[in-house]
Amino acid sequence: MGNNLQDVPDIVVGRLPIYLRALSAMQASGKQYTSSHELAEWLGISSAQIRKDLSHFGEFGKQGTGYSVAGLHDQLRHILHLNREWPLIIVGAGNIGSAVASYTGFAQRGFRVIGAFDNDPSKIGTKVGPFIVHDNREIPAFVKENHVRHAMIAVPAEYAQQVADLLVASGITGILNYAPINLSVPAKVRVEYIDPVLHLQKMTYYFE
Amino acid sequence: MGNNLQDVPDIVVGRLPIYLRALSAMQASGKQYTSSHELAEWLGISSAQIRKDLSHFGEFGKQGTGYSVAGLHDQLRHILHLNREWPLIIVGAGNIGSAVASYTGFAQRGFRVIGAFDNDPSKIGTKVGPFIVHDNREIPAFVKENHVRHAMIAVPAEYAQQVADLLVASGITGILNYAPINLSVPAKVRVEYIDPVLHLQKMTYYFE
Repeated sequence: MGNNLQDVPDIVVGRLPIYLRALSAMQASGKQYTSSHELAEWLGISSAQIRKDLSHFGEFGKQGTGYSVAGLHDQLRHILHLNREWPLIIVGAGNIGSAVASYTGFAQRGFRVIGAFDNDPSKIGTKVGPFIVHDNREIPAFVKENHVRHAMIAVPAEYAQQVADLLVASGITGILNYAPINLSVPAKVRVEYIDPVLHLQKMTYYFE
Repeated sequence: MGNNLQDVPDIVVGRLPIYLRALSAMQASGKQYTSSHELAEWLGISSAQIRKDLSHFGEFGKQGTGYSVAGLHDQLRHILHLNREWPLIIVGAGNIGSAVASYTGFAQRGFRVIGAFDNDPSKIGTKVGPFIVHDNREIPAFVKENHVRHAMIAVPAEYAQQVADLLVASGITGILNYAPINLSVPAKVRVEYIDPVLHLQKMTYYFE
């Protein structure tokens, strides 16, 4: 049940948080049991796919009764290492950085923003959400002192790679990149991308 | 070469915009030719996968010379229906909606925000980015008049489904949802999700 299962495909890992989110919503609505069929209907993913994904991590459901919502929820949290809170920093105090700094949806889901940074003197010392913006030069010491592993990059595309280099040198191993460029990082560092245009372009493929 | 190729897997379609983004960057840097190996190195996707993905749509590369950057770029734009500009509306004038309304990266990539909406009387009439916020009740007429197909939902989770229902009833067929819940829509409507926490949770799977 640990993550020594190195051969779980990345795409399967990517669906686990989606299952977790659905189970949280079910839990909030008081539901006690669910099934791969019900999850399939909620999520638009086939029930066979859901069962196959979960089977990488053990036996969860019972014939007849299905899955315990709370039980599967807890096990997915465990598998995803979310039974602790991960600190997070934001680099870039523009529109996107400000929106993310003010977002209240992290706390219940395993993350807490603890610092915001920018290299623009006109932004340093101002506030984004509840955070005072600090100079990028303070990142290495801050990351070390607070054992930070995750950072969000919300700077213009032309600065994103140099910010990524600074983050990696500071010990960050997970980057969520809002800048619309691919980053080059060492293999041990994970990068995920948020680019709304990629999603819009994917949709238009299906449009006439 | 058209999109009558109904059987291209969704996950392949999802990678085409990533290839297009890399080709745009190559074009901007003056590069004339590339290869599946070079793209693979830029993107962290295997060269075999890239060749297989592109083979769904025809023969692009030449033995020896590889791909013409401009040629492949244009063909991907064509396949993704991006050789026109798609109008876009934003529903929700909070932090995320404001950040997206101010984002300047849509125009060169096939999209243009043309309107912003909210149901909060304190926001209607104010500005987000360059747009005056209009009442949600104006959405159906606006969508029809401007032939809008795409909308972004940037409202709190508890209102997202009712906004989606209004958008679908108005004729929207592609929704980019920033609210952290799964939406229920008819099969003809595409929904894509942007939820930073899903990406963060996926990363922590790989962390000790």
